[in-house]
Amino acid sequence: MNDASTAEIVGNKWIGRRTIRPDGADKVTGRAAYAADTTMPGMIWGRVLRSPHPHARIVAIDTSKAEAVPGVKAVITARDVVHFPVETPVPLGIQDMRWISRNVMAREKALFHGHPVAAVAATTEAIAAEACALIEVKYEVLPWAIEIDDALKPDAPILHESIRFEGKPSNIAGRLEHKLGDVEAGFAAADVVIERSFRTEPVHQGYIESHACLVSVAPDGKSTVWSSSQGQFMVRAMCAHLAGMPQSDIRAIPAEIGGGFGGKTIVYLEPLALLLSRKSGRPVKMVMSRDEVFRATGPTSGSKSTVKIGATSDGRIVAAQGTFYLQAGALPGSPIRGAAGCAFAPYDIPNVHSVGYDVVSNRSKVAAYRAPGAPIGAYATECVLDEVAEALKMDPLEFRLKNAAREGTKAAHGPVFPRIGFVETIEAARAHPHVTAPLGKHQGRGVASGFWFNAGGESSAQVNITEDGNVVVTTGHPDIGGSRASTANIAAELLGIDYRRVSVLIGDTATIGYSNLTGGSRVTFASAMVVTQATEKVIATLRERAAAIWKIDPDAVKWENGEAVPAGHNAGRFPALTLAEIAARAPETGGPIGAGVQLNTAGAEGGFATHICDVEVDLDLGIVRVVRYTAIQDVGRAIHPGYVEGQMQGGVAQGIGWALNEEYMYDRQGRVDNASFLDYRMPVCSDLPMLDTVIIEVPNPKHPQGVRGVGEVPIVPPLAAVANAVYRALGRRLYSLPMSPPRVLAALAV
Amino acid sequence: MNDASTAEIVGNKWIGRRTIRPDGADKVTGRAAYAADTTMPGMIWGRVLRSPHPHARIVAIDTSKAEAVPGVKAVITARDVVHFPVETPVPLGIQDMRWISRNVMAREKALFHGHPVAAVAATTEAIAAEACALIEVKYEVLPWAIEIDDALKPDAPILHESIRFEGKPSNIAGRLEHKLGDVEAGFAAADVVIERSFRTEPVHQGYIESHACLVSVAPDGKSTVWSSSQGQFMVRAMCAHLAGMPQSDIRAIPAEIGGGFGGKTIVYLEPLALLLSRKSGRPVKMVMSRDEVFRATGPTSGSKSTVKIGATSDGRIVAAQGTFYLQAGALPGSPIRGAAGCAFAPYDIPNVHSVGYDVVSNRSKVAAYRAPGAPIGAYATECVLDEVAEALKMDPLEFRLKNAAREGTKAAHGPVFPRIGFVETIEAARAHPHVTAPLGKHQGRGVASGFWFNAGGESSAQVNITEDGNVVVTTGHPDIGGSRASTANIAAELLGIDYRRVSVLIGDTATIGYSNLTGGSRVTFASAMVVTQATEKVIATLRERAAAIWKIDPDAVKWENGEAVPAGHNAGRFPALTLAEIAARAPETGGPIGAGVQLNTAGAEGGFATHICDVEVDLDLGIVRVVRYTAIQDVGRAIHPGYVEGQMQGGVAQGIGWALNEEYMYDRQGRVDNASFLDYRMPVCSDLPMLDTVIIEVPNPKHPQGVRGVGEVPIVPPLAAVANAVYRALGRRLYSLPMSPPRVLAALAV
Repeated sequence: MNDASTAEIVGNKWIGRRTIRPDGADKVTGRAAYAADTTMPGMIWGRVLRSPHPHARIVAIDTSKAEAVPGVKAVITARDVVHFPVETPVPLGIQDMRWISRNVMAREKALFHGHPVAAVAATTEAIAAEACALIEVKYEVLPWAIEIDDALKPDAPILHESIRFEGKPSNIAGRLEHKLGDVEAGFAAADVVIERSFRTEPVHQGYIESHACLVSVAPDGKSTVWSSSQGQFMVRAMCAHLAGMPQSDIRAIPAEIGGGFGGKTIVYLEPLALLLSRKSGRPVKMVMSRDEVFRATGPTSGSKSTVKIGATSDGRIVAAQGTFYLQAGALPGSPIRGAAGCAFAPYDIPNVHSVGYDVVSNRSKVAAYRAPGAPIGAYATECVLDEVAEALKMDPLEFRLKNAAREGTKAAHGPVFPRIGFVETIEAARAHPHVTAPLGKHQGRGVASGFWFNAGGESSAQVNITEDGNVVVTTGHPDIGGSRASTANIAAELLGIDYRRVSVLIGDTATIGYSNLTGGSRVTFASAMVVTQATEKVIATLRERAAAIWKIDPDAVKWENGEAVPAGHNAGRFPALTLAEIAARAPETGGPIGAGVQLNTAGAEGGFATHICDVEVDLDLGIVRVVRYTAIQDVGRAIHPGYVEGQMQGGVAQGIGWALNEEYMYDRQGRVDNASFLDYRMPVCSDLPMLDTVIIEVPNPKHPQGVRGVGEVPIVPPLAAVANAVYRALGRRLYSLPMSPPRVLAALAV
Repeated sequence: MNDASTAEIVGNKWIGRRTIRPDGADKVTGRAAYAADTTMPGMIWGRVLRSPHPHARIVAIDTSKAEAVPGVKAVITARDVVHFPVETPVPLGIQDMRWISRNVMAREKALFHGHPVAAVAATTEAIAAEACALIEVKYEVLPWAIEIDDALKPDAPILHESIRFEGKPSNIAGRLEHKLGDVEAGFAAADVVIERSFRTEPVHQGYIESHACLVSVAPDGKSTVWSSSQGQFMVRAMCAHLAGMPQSDIRAIPAEIGGGFGGKTIVYLEPLALLLSRKSGRPVKMVMSRDEVFRATGPTSGSKSTVKIGATSDGRIVAAQGTFYLQAGALPGSPIRGAAGCAFAPYDIPNVHSVGYDVVSNRSKVAAYRAPGAPIGAYATECVLDEVAEALKMDPLEFRLKNAAREGTKAAHGPVFPRIGFVETIEAARAHPHVTAPLGKHQGRGVASGFWFNAGGESSAQVNITEDGNVVVTTGHPDIGGSRASTANIAAELLGIDYRRVSVLIGDTATIGYSNLTGGSRVTFASAMVVTQATEKVIATLRERAAAIWKIDPDAVKWENGEAVPAGHNAGRFPALTLAEIAARAPETGGPIGAGVQLNTAGAEGGFATHICDVEVDLDLGIVRVVRYTAIQDVGRAIHPGYVEGQMQGGVAQGIGWALNEEYMYDRQGRVDNASFLDYRMPVCSDLPMLDTVIIEVPNPKHPQGVRGVGEVPIVPPLAAVANAVYRALGRRLYSLPMSPPRVLAALAV
């Protein structure tokens, strides 16, 4: 960090301002181009044929009738997708390529209802659908298992013969363990020990925009992919792998994205469209129906878990144990790390044992979903904590405060925390009027806290000065939550110029350096870091150029309020040079002014939140209504408070849906029975009160602006906050989510 | 330059190879997207209303009837264009903004037939055209002048009252003078002095693709411009100026371009479409008809010139004097620098006086055209040189060789030449079998040489390594002549990898650093420089990463054949690491690998050529046919010989058209009378023999690969080469171009 420029931040003219988002006008006027808006001359349409069975061996596929339909230009099956032997791990991003190959197209077996078995490209969607129906697939239907308990039965149908657990073929595909201290000794020393078991259902990310892409492959193999994703570089890498092409032949362009929440960190359609385009020689467009989105794209895991917590009578937690079984869907890979790792992370507990199990069953493969796994872990822990506090007759916030992780606390999943703001969130909750507000009849109040790792990783930024002295910044992450505005705030702040003079754009894979996913609450953290470094390089150049014009040493030039100013013994010798003046003289002083930075960022550390929730239960209908909600979170530094609040509110809304209503329902044939927004019940505006937010700013010492990840923590506490509130409203606990009317009525009937 | 990497060039595995152009498949299969292929939802169409008079005061414009037409969304006039007072020069690129403002839209006066006076955007082109016809413009028609002689008459109508020459209002808008030595003394010492006057007609660049653009302005002013141009940054800058917007609000995307030849270094439609889009709130598309292209976009200047050359009897040129009047069209700015500067540059002449005059008249404003002005200068000089050689009874090539500029020669326009290859081109011509081949009846052979400045200027490049170890290079110049292939050759050569592992793309104004025009024969020169520097930075990083993996010093790592190899006392200690292996470990060794360079390049120096032309004259029809042509040129280093030859052949073809057929014809109302490819006669394949090329490589000492500019020199000699050949076929000289059948017959009739 350059002292001259960090000094600029103090004023905070733009950082912390609720600036207008650069993509706002486009989005509210319908001009923003989403993947499904894209079109090309000669474009044809792709459709996917999906398995009608949850588990079936594919004996034969005859595509000849489909190929004979006039208008059909290409048909593909698993034979066209590069096959990764299961013996050879090819790790890539958050998913394992050997399994993704089988997720985009079933190979030996169809593993869930909706699993793609073939795809057709034709001149119209209707012809493609008609041709799909003419593909003859000979299936050998197999027994299936949907739920964790069924998948773990001794005689359960085994999805993958190659997967073994404890020496035998198994549906347990992985195990993760965190250990700290001696948990047995810890429980022995406890005065109160409570152990409970919990269940959650898989819930879908529920993005408004369904998956869509347009892929054009030229005769020489050069390909362009427009798609809705959380990472154009992920799209490029996965397409290259699955089609057996060099990445340099693929240009992946990030369309505007209508929500992802983790569910677009993976490809479904893009490789199929690419293969269809390569085979047909035509650009191929594919758009999923909502039904396909629900049936065949990742929800997050359903789970069953057991958490046991022991505390001494003075309110000290001395031991915690957790066992978390998470559904992976039909192919291995569930967020056991989030569940087992985040469950106990907010607390300073000397003895911890946390174990996660990855369980495959005949449902669609899970994908990342906002703080993957963490809400599952926190749900169990924060409910048990509530019971322990009650047993100890302690206020639940006071109990959490007493045990809160602080700087120097060793977390069971690995790190020793640096300066964090968890204590501040609990103290803010204790001081908040919400906590002492009176409650009405059948109302209850719950609190819960939560933790998310946050991520760093690769980001790239380019900062260029235009000839007229304005600024264009390019970054490499699809902007979902307003990151263009945050980026502009930072560049304007550092340069000391008006925010409106900074344009921020998202580059494609050809025009910006490698940038990891929009996910992991990493974008503002990492973008700010690379944008700061690139802007500081630009400021150094601007000082050099001014020095060249003045014929003095660059060290004798300060950058202040958007101007180069002579300093030291040169102070006052020359009138200040504005950015525009220096830009106008760029050709003669060394050429265009701009700088790029590509970095693997580190220092994201964790994020913490404490939530307060009031519910009211309709005892007749079993409906639980959230009547007041306050989310308090340490965000490090809010670069753009409006979008920080938006993330907090969005996470809470999704957490409430998870707690109260959302679930997958399967029929007796192992098929999803509620694959629509009518039957899969997500909360809408009328279901929720205003979700209040309190931003706490304890700057991250490892970040130039103090940023911590923001987007994921807010979904971690709500499951338990709602559950704890329902307990207080009803006087009895429900240990399964969702606490939907049928389940609430069933609990009341006991 | 890094020694390790320059050593790589020696092998020349890719530099000098005729690699397949990266955009080839797209172009031959019709997939390449040109500006007119672009479309947007809600798009409307713009049309221009043009002046029917060559010179008229605009008294009033009433657009109310046009605005009332259903479907019309916006109408603009000069009131909507930012006005630059003529008193305030705003220099920008090759044209002066204060005049461009008046060229895109007439202000007080319409200055040529076809001058835009208003523009309409409507839902269809037909409605826009209908509305244009309903705009009522009250003109006060003024006397006009089309030809130079008419514009220079004492009582000529004055186009611009603000322009003064020798204290009086004048149509001479500028004068340029080069002086070296004492030209009077030089002529006094000469044994032979010949002075001749010449005329050339304006000729059009004749690109296949007419001007086209699509512009979308969002409600917040953020704008996207797709257009056919030789420079997206020029488009951005001019649109920003003419619309009064910050450059950072405009993203200018270079569409593929179907030829420019200098004529697309300027804007015509883009600012109008932008203003119409801003006013209508709709994306606006505009495409010129060929008629509009001919009437209202820049040809190059018509000219009249006088050249006087004196030599001693031993064949030494001792003095040269030139006077060049060039048409600017209706607004100031003609390539007098090219004419007056290049005319005598190939020769070592101690006494030179060269003067250029910029003459406005009521014709469309000239634009750059391949080596602007230089063919005009060379035509006169090389014809007179031929006469001097004949008078001295010297072989014309021997005469040129005797006086040829070499390293250390001082040119009248300024520079002292570094190592150049002019002598080598003449020697190659003398040794070429063409020179001694027998001639048939009515055939004649001419030779001529030529010079072009070549340009450096701003270029930017970004070189990124993909995760799988391939390479993506982005540059900022529209690729007209195959520069993507040249760029890939260089990157592959330096990195020591297969050419097919390198993708090259052209960035837009948001995604690559400032890059000056595709023009001035600068693109391969300047791109090679920035791509070399960026690639060398990447190689340095790759060596660092390998060193980190091996835990040795980066200086102990060599880059050889696409691999990092331990060197010195570490040699053989570790197996080499390939690019793919290093790329795979990028996250753990420091993050993504890539580097960008933005540079104002220098050291382009000049380029030289010598041509040999055989013609046959049909004495009955007056048709001159070129029957054999050999172009010999020092290109420094041919990065891609195929595209070097293409440039040489293209320049010759255009020069032959200029010499033999192309001209503008005006009717009695001052209107262009041959505004179509049927009536404006450019040479087509059947008009020409195979144009032979000889590439001479005398490396430019100021360039990492030795590159000199290539694209413009080839159009400089043909006018004189053809004229000298016609003289020898006919036994009499024509001093005016084109030497079209009517003129040849007229000359024969004398």
